[in-house]
Amino acid sequence: MVTLATSCFTKINEGESVLFTLSIANDATPFVLKRILVAGKEPISEIKFEKGTYHFYPDKGYEKFAYISNHGDLMVNTPFLIEGFKNLTIDGQGSTFIFHGVMIPFFIEKSENISIKNVSIDWHEAFHSEGLIVANDEVNKTFDMQISKEYPYEIRNGQIYFVKEYYEHNLGQTILYDPARKAIAYNTKDYTDISVYTRTKSQNNINKIKYKYDYDKRAPEFKHVGIESRLTFEQLEPGLVRVHGGHKKKMPPLGMILTMKGEQGYNRVSPAFKVSYTNGFNGTNVNVHHAGGMGIIAENSSDLILDNFNIIPSKGRMVSTTADATHFVGCRGKVVLKNCTFNNQLDDATNVHGTYQKVVDILSDSKIGVRMMHHQQKGFVIGQPNDTVGLVRLGESFFPYGKMTIKNIEYLNNRYQIISFNEKLPEDFKVGDLIENLDGYPDLLIQNCKINNNRARGLLISNPVNTIIENNFFSTEMEAILIPVESGHWFESGNAANVIIRNNVFQDCLHGGRNRGVIRFVTDDNNENIAFKNIEISNNIFNQFDNLILEVANTDGITFSGNKITNSGTFPQLYKENPVIKIKSSKHIKFKNNKYSGLVHLDNMLETDQPMSNLKFK
Amino acid sequence: MVTLATSCFTKINEGESVLFTLSIANDATPFVLKRILVAGKEPISEIKFEKGTYHFYPDKGYEKFAYISNHGDLMVNTPFLIEGFKNLTIDGQGSTFIFHGVMIPFFIEKSENISIKNVSIDWHEAFHSEGLIVANDEVNKTFDMQISKEYPYEIRNGQIYFVKEYYEHNLGQTILYDPARKAIAYNTKDYTDISVYTRTKSQNNINKIKYKYDYDKRAPEFKHVGIESRLTFEQLEPGLVRVHGGHKKKMPPLGMILTMKGEQGYNRVSPAFKVSYTNGFNGTNVNVHHAGGMGIIAENSSDLILDNFNIIPSKGRMVSTTADATHFVGCRGKVVLKNCTFNNQLDDATNVHGTYQKVVDILSDSKIGVRMMHHQQKGFVIGQPNDTVGLVRLGESFFPYGKMTIKNIEYLNNRYQIISFNEKLPEDFKVGDLIENLDGYPDLLIQNCKINNNRARGLLISNPVNTIIENNFFSTEMEAILIPVESGHWFESGNAANVIIRNNVFQDCLHGGRNRGVIRFVTDDNNENIAFKNIEISNNIFNQFDNLILEVANTDGITFSGNKITNSGTFPQLYKENPVIKIKSSKHIKFKNNKYSGLVHLDNMLETDQPMSNLKFK
Repeated sequence: MVTLATSCFTKINEGESVLFTLSIANDATPFVLKRILVAGKEPISEIKFEKGTYHFYPDKGYEKFAYISNHGDLMVNTPFLIEGFKNLTIDGQGSTFIFHGVMIPFFIEKSENISIKNVSIDWHEAFHSEGLIVANDEVNKTFDMQISKEYPYEIRNGQIYFVKEYYEHNLGQTILYDPARKAIAYNTKDYTDISVYTRTKSQNNINKIKYKYDYDKRAPEFKHVGIESRLTFEQLEPGLVRVHGGHKKKMPPLGMILTMKGEQGYNRVSPAFKVSYTNGFNGTNVNVHHAGGMGIIAENSSDLILDNFNIIPSKGRMVSTTADATHFVGCRGKVVLKNCTFNNQLDDATNVHGTYQKVVDILSDSKIGVRMMHHQQKGFVIGQPNDTVGLVRLGESFFPYGKMTIKNIEYLNNRYQIISFNEKLPEDFKVGDLIENLDGYPDLLIQNCKINNNRARGLLISNPVNTIIENNFFSTEMEAILIPVESGHWFESGNAANVIIRNNVFQDCLHGGRNRGVIRFVTDDNNENIAFKNIEISNNIFNQFDNLILEVANTDGITFSGNKITNSGTFPQLYKENPVIKIKSSKHIKFKNNKYSGLVHLDNMLETDQPMSNLKFK
Repeated sequence: MVTLATSCFTKINEGESVLFTLSIANDATPFVLKRILVAGKEPISEIKFEKGTYHFYPDKGYEKFAYISNHGDLMVNTPFLIEGFKNLTIDGQGSTFIFHGVMIPFFIEKSENISIKNVSIDWHEAFHSEGLIVANDEVNKTFDMQISKEYPYEIRNGQIYFVKEYYEHNLGQTILYDPARKAIAYNTKDYTDISVYTRTKSQNNINKIKYKYDYDKRAPEFKHVGIESRLTFEQLEPGLVRVHGGHKKKMPPLGMILTMKGEQGYNRVSPAFKVSYTNGFNGTNVNVHHAGGMGIIAENSSDLILDNFNIIPSKGRMVSTTADATHFVGCRGKVVLKNCTFNNQLDDATNVHGTYQKVVDILSDSKIGVRMMHHQQKGFVIGQPNDTVGLVRLGESFFPYGKMTIKNIEYLNNRYQIISFNEKLPEDFKVGDLIENLDGYPDLLIQNCKINNNRARGLLISNPVNTIIENNFFSTEMEAILIPVESGHWFESGNAANVIIRNNVFQDCLHGGRNRGVIRFVTDDNNENIAFKNIEISNNIFNQFDNLILEVANTDGITFSGNKITNSGTFPQLYKENPVIKIKSSKHIKFKNNKYSGLVHLDNMLETDQPMSNLKFK
């Protein structure tokens, strides 16, 4: 190796390596922030922490208003304001960071090549609450919960409020956990969600309120109109609460734990990582024990690699994060999840999609006004200049009927933006059409991950580029893998193509009790059009307690091969009438080399909406 | 006059005069905004409107998060985003602008010399609601309200919610209006505020929640802990509502109108004008018929002149703006209110003050951390570089014990900022001291204004510079003029000096029933220190229904001369035991040439805390 005189090179200011010691542990926020805020003048390449436990309070944190996809929108507070950074590593060296109240631990925006490693993240108090079911009464429709001192509460006008440091929530969204399995209770759908609403009984002239434009009745600012709580809460003794009022499903069983996270629209305020407009993010050897929202929400970013990035509950809590473990909206380049554990979160292990935005104004021959349709998409900007946008009319096709490239986007408010294109709009373009960003989907790899004990799906994927799902373990409450096109509610865009699902183990998925396939392709437009293409499902093991494995609709080209299907016997079957595979509105379906030793008779293995002579399961 | 060749001069780009016609009247927001947003490239000197009625909706308005003094803090929406403008006139030419929902009609920031004239502002639906008292029952402690169709409502779990276009409010803050006088009901204090809260009865471990730092129990995020509604609402028939639950004062009298504006901390979201960091603002021939907050809130601005700027209710409503008519925080230069009518607003006609911020950290010998103490001061920045800040310890003196000049302010979050000074802190400086901006007070002139029928005070003034109050008419529910120093609740800074109150008429002020002086100087620190200096009260007419005219404390130098005091007989007296003038902890008080023809015997005219031999009322 030749040593060159350093003077031959322009000095690259690589930035300082900063070490924080445990002297700041009582409230690390002001110290970390002080250094980060001067990084423009005094660059940082690395921030290390002496191994130990650090507390972070919001009182002296940096605040910034943020619209966050699939979260509430709020003035967020963070110690790690990673904005406009390049080539920064934050190394916890095995430390634990304990957050207090509504904060975003890592707020990463408009940056490049950011690595965060060797750190565990937890919260002093949880954003959800838990109650052990200790009595129930089907006649009087009541049940009793024992609520431990970790979850302080009070009853105001008959309604329960769980009060935390800097936060509170009401009953809201609920699901049962089985403490013996530390997983979602078997067949929880018969018991939860606890019914919380009923129609108001006394109104006057409410129906006279008119809106000039579309409005979103489900948005937090409108959703309470016309409804009230159907429940009332009675404290029998401190910590023991009886729930009255006609929950419409079965009373929750004794010994189960009811997890409560407050009302939708208000209960996602503190994701652990928010990454946006960032190219290159690595999360390595990270444990997220809790968050009041997702483990990571990434938007409009590229090349995100999570390696040994784990969502695992702490302190005996049933719940880790109160929403998805990970979630990627409009991300491109590579998205990789490998060697991760996603346990006990209250929503999907991942969700990968874009957004559909609705055309509400045609302002010129190359300029439109668009509306963000779901309140959790408020403020989302669909793309960057020169991105290719698809023009979509889902009733006619799941694929775009035209393409345009973005010239620029004028952000007016969280529901309305003006988009100018480089080209003229097609003649048949019309108000009511949707747009999606065709450049905003990734090459997705999910490998060696363990996904279990959580609410909802394993993977929810709307990705027309490439997706590989391999060597993972799934034991999920709903579908292990859901691949949808939908536009009626969430407006999460993307059909799917080039999906490989191989060498995974599916163990007792759908134990929450829904009548669905472990792997499921579905659209919410009831037509024959093709939405999904080129799917391989190979060499997986399905060890399920119930029949239905694969549910396919609107698909052109699935190969299902080398899979083994066995019956686990773990739980009682719920849907004995089901086949193993359901197929509709699909073509080019191949089965080969699969082994079946489940409970369904071979003649009843397939249910199809048309004769498919070449469709043999062997 | 010599005509010079124009070529001798550099062309001054004066900007375009823009005229909007009634073609945009259905929703003027996107059209106005479109033009304003390109003003950087295509300057505007004037925006005129063809005379007529224009509607403004928020759907396509410009949004921006704003902390607004003495309001809620929120994502605001505006068509008139006047930011960074210089020399702009907006001329309504007699038009009426009707706003829909949560909007700020005029959002003016970092601008110079802005004039708005010849326009009336109203809202399609009011941010408050009104109910006519049609029955009451002192035995069962209930009263019944007839609620007209202008105020749609529903009852959710026993609580009433008034639902508007894009907004709703609960009962919250209330006061009675007398429809015959279209003014606050005589002695409303015996009936209102309606008692809305009681302590929660069932709690568990709430008292175990600990905070590391100061927190504000009155802030919206904490205020509900430990309380619940004491009232329940029953709809007897559509539009007729019975209020149960033990309101603690007398039941409101038949025929009065209860105005309800929702809960404090949530009910000020749409002031008509927000002006900040602006030098030179003229509001001329403006009528503000309503606003969900103040008529105008001005912060950190200078040279503000309101001329014929009127707050007047419309559409038969009892209420105009739901908060102060005008409010000035940290304003300097000239502040002028002349020829204005301030009627029926639900708070003061004006409030002029600075802020006290509390020192919570000493970070170096010239750097401190400060906390914003009241939640309605969140986000307020106390001054600009080189402003002189006073160091205050109110328990010791109402005047600063030291002065510093600001080097810079680092804004971290809405409650915490770091201030660096050009000088070293004094040795005895300590955590817990307050700071105020001594350069943030104006030369204040209030002239030829008519202030009546509103809730609360006429003028609330904390101004140590110069104040002239002349030729005004007052008929206010509380004090006509309140001059305080207080630090226990609002943290609105400023003692007062050089105040001239002359040639005004005070007609039946304090008709709301409080036991206070029509003009009142008061501190909330119970000591002998001087807070107020050099006060002249001359040639005024006090035509009052009750005795007490002037209440003075902690004052050095008042001349009370040439005033006429008569008894109006308008209402029954409430406080017959009162003298005409109360004085404590004051000196250099002079009375001359006053005429008294009220009800108090001359011997009982003055109440003082010390013998003042030279204190003669003649």
